[in-house]
Amino acid sequence: MSRTTVALLGATGSIGTQTLEVLRREPERFELTAIAGGAASVNRLIAIAREFSVTRIGVPTNQARAAVIEALSGVEVVVGDEGLGELASSTDTVVNAVVGFAGLPVTLSALRAGKRLALANKESLIAASPLVEQVRHTRGAELLPIDSEHCAIHQALAGASAEANYPDVRRLILTASGGPFRGWDSTTLDTATKAQALAHPTWSMGPKITIDSSTLMNKGLEVLEASALFGIEVSRVEVVIHPQSVVHSMVEYVDGSVIAQLSKPDMRLPIAYCLGLPERLDHAWGALDFHSPLSLEFFPPDVANFPALSIAYEAARIGGGAPAWMSAANEVAVEAFLGERITWRQIVEIVATTLDHYEPSAIETLSELLEADRRAREIATASLPR
Amino acid sequence: MSRTTVALLGATGSIGTQTLEVLRREPERFELTAIAGGAASVNRLIAIAREFSVTRIGVPTNQARAAVIEALSGVEVVVGDEGLGELASSTDTVVNAVVGFAGLPVTLSALRAGKRLALANKESLIAASPLVEQVRHTRGAELLPIDSEHCAIHQALAGASAEANYPDVRRLILTASGGPFRGWDSTTLDTATKAQALAHPTWSMGPKITIDSSTLMNKGLEVLEASALFGIEVSRVEVVIHPQSVVHSMVEYVDGSVIAQLSKPDMRLPIAYCLGLPERLDHAWGALDFHSPLSLEFFPPDVANFPALSIAYEAARIGGGAPAWMSAANEVAVEAFLGERITWRQIVEIVATTLDHYEPSAIETLSELLEADRRAREIATASLPR
Repeated sequence: MSRTTVALLGATGSIGTQTLEVLRREPERFELTAIAGGAASVNRLIAIAREFSVTRIGVPTNQARAAVIEALSGVEVVVGDEGLGELASSTDTVVNAVVGFAGLPVTLSALRAGKRLALANKESLIAASPLVEQVRHTRGAELLPIDSEHCAIHQALAGASAEANYPDVRRLILTASGGPFRGWDSTTLDTATKAQALAHPTWSMGPKITIDSSTLMNKGLEVLEASALFGIEVSRVEVVIHPQSVVHSMVEYVDGSVIAQLSKPDMRLPIAYCLGLPERLDHAWGALDFHSPLSLEFFPPDVANFPALSIAYEAARIGGGAPAWMSAANEVAVEAFLGERITWRQIVEIVATTLDHYEPSAIETLSELLEADRRAREIATASLPR
Repeated sequence: MSRTTVALLGATGSIGTQTLEVLRREPERFELTAIAGGAASVNRLIAIAREFSVTRIGVPTNQARAAVIEALSGVEVVVGDEGLGELASSTDTVVNAVVGFAGLPVTLSALRAGKRLALANKESLIAASPLVEQVRHTRGAELLPIDSEHCAIHQALAGASAEANYPDVRRLILTASGGPFRGWDSTTLDTATKAQALAHPTWSMGPKITIDSSTLMNKGLEVLEASALFGIEVSRVEVVIHPQSVVHSMVEYVDGSVIAQLSKPDMRLPIAYCLGLPERLDHAWGALDFHSPLSLEFFPPDVANFPALSIAYEAARIGGGAPAWMSAANEVAVEAFLGERITWRQIVEIVATTLDHYEPSAIETLSELLEADRRAREIATASLPR
């Protein structure tokens, strides 16, 4: 059996590193042939290329290209977004772990080329969802989520009817840990600090996503992602708080049956799932231990104190460029919070204010998307305190 | 679309009554054409036949036959086990809710005729498993479990590889409420009364199965059933205590992912699932309410105080007629307990003693099975206190 070729774009970040751990265990199944990473991680890229005998490498600058060529012989080095797009159409499977809008050419290129895309890039399914929709139905193209919640839903949908819009599904139920401020009341939330917001109870992640988890904006974005990914109306996507992060999400069928996926929080499980499907790779990354007591709680989100969720549903309802506006405004606000320019409360206030000023636009091209993003950032930035 | 014809055998008991509730909601999808019930419930059978315009009726005696013929015109009435077998090969789907060994001809006849069999009869998969194995691979035959645990596993296996013995599954995890004596220590269990044993915390069931639930023998029997039903070694079937009876069972895959099925405890859900598959019937019998707090606990079974589980694994390990012996001895012991002739502790002691005297035999014919059953009952009865 010939090996599945894999491109790992965004190889040096957290998802990239964990993808390498999965690939390291399956050398007979997968062949890593292409990698890409940022300018700050050229040495790491070189080390990965050496370990896995990678032959195609993507870097952001000509300077980085020179450094790679000096270190390695017999490799092809490509530069910039165009280079990323090239790499993304060169293998059987593409892991898109690129951060931000830079991941978009990877997504579009992989789907357009009819590849399996294991997607960790958030922008591809939120702001850029209308663009992705144009190419995802290419023959052979597969869009699989590297994300514990959406991967759980993908598994829970295994028995669902293949008809469009899932007629036998009542709703998708995304679980949320509730973040560090779960259970906090209105008064204590007024005093929430950056350090408190960065202390996530169950997952260890980057600062941006950890802050998003504290406001529940992370879950709001995931509601939009789930809707785009599974082609299901946002009104059929719900959120339930589940502090233990063991049930990663659920599907409720029309007959009342709920199918859930459980494991320890471990991103290597969804990564391995996306790489191996339809087979399950034989290494239990997130296995639960039922020989010890386990207690799982579920309760509804506190929408009054965590309004980010409602804002996300509203952005979905508006459609068009609104999700892009929401996401852009949130990035500006989270950056301002991390820079200690605004309070925790103000993060979501700035997102809401920006969305109030939304200028309706269709998103049919990348330049329209980038313009919507730019305009939303402009308005969000203007609403920051001086 | 023509309607699916259904035979409901054991129409007047708890499963029968709940099956009628499901059928009542789906008159355009299902046509109830055959029913059968016990001698004590002839009037109920007549009422069901009138309501659903049933044309074929099975009764146990000629006297009951005369009563049905007197009450209804234009119906065919069959008598005894042979009559049951005839009805079980006359429809698209057969619901076998017959209690005890009398359900065996129904199972064998339905599978031999290549029908869908929705099975609530326990004996078919425990004592008679070797006989059922001979006929279940008939072209068209489908064996689906009307049972919350096995139905949960059936759903959780939706994404599994279709290869024999489920290579991508690590183990099946059956949940058990733990019964009324969950958490009781050795001393208090010595004083357990019949009334206490009959007070099941989550499910309302008949006395035999409620006592089995108090000893965990019910779960031991289900371990054997799961092994037979899914064709998976008993060593890959585990039990976890889950007092809330919301997660009905789980499947752990080799990649560490666990798929679980959740709902309120409601037998109409598995009944509707077995009738509707591959479609889900659009009525949410057991829907959960995630708008209220929900807490789910899991812990390992107390095998020291509830030895029935270990006995069941031992019976499975011995194979042949041992499961039949275990089940027969348990029936004798439970009856003696309900008659207040033995203590709660003695139920499982009698099963263990009987199995210690197991006389190895292959089960290839019904008469061999009935002989094993008779012999086990004889030994179990002899071990009862005078």
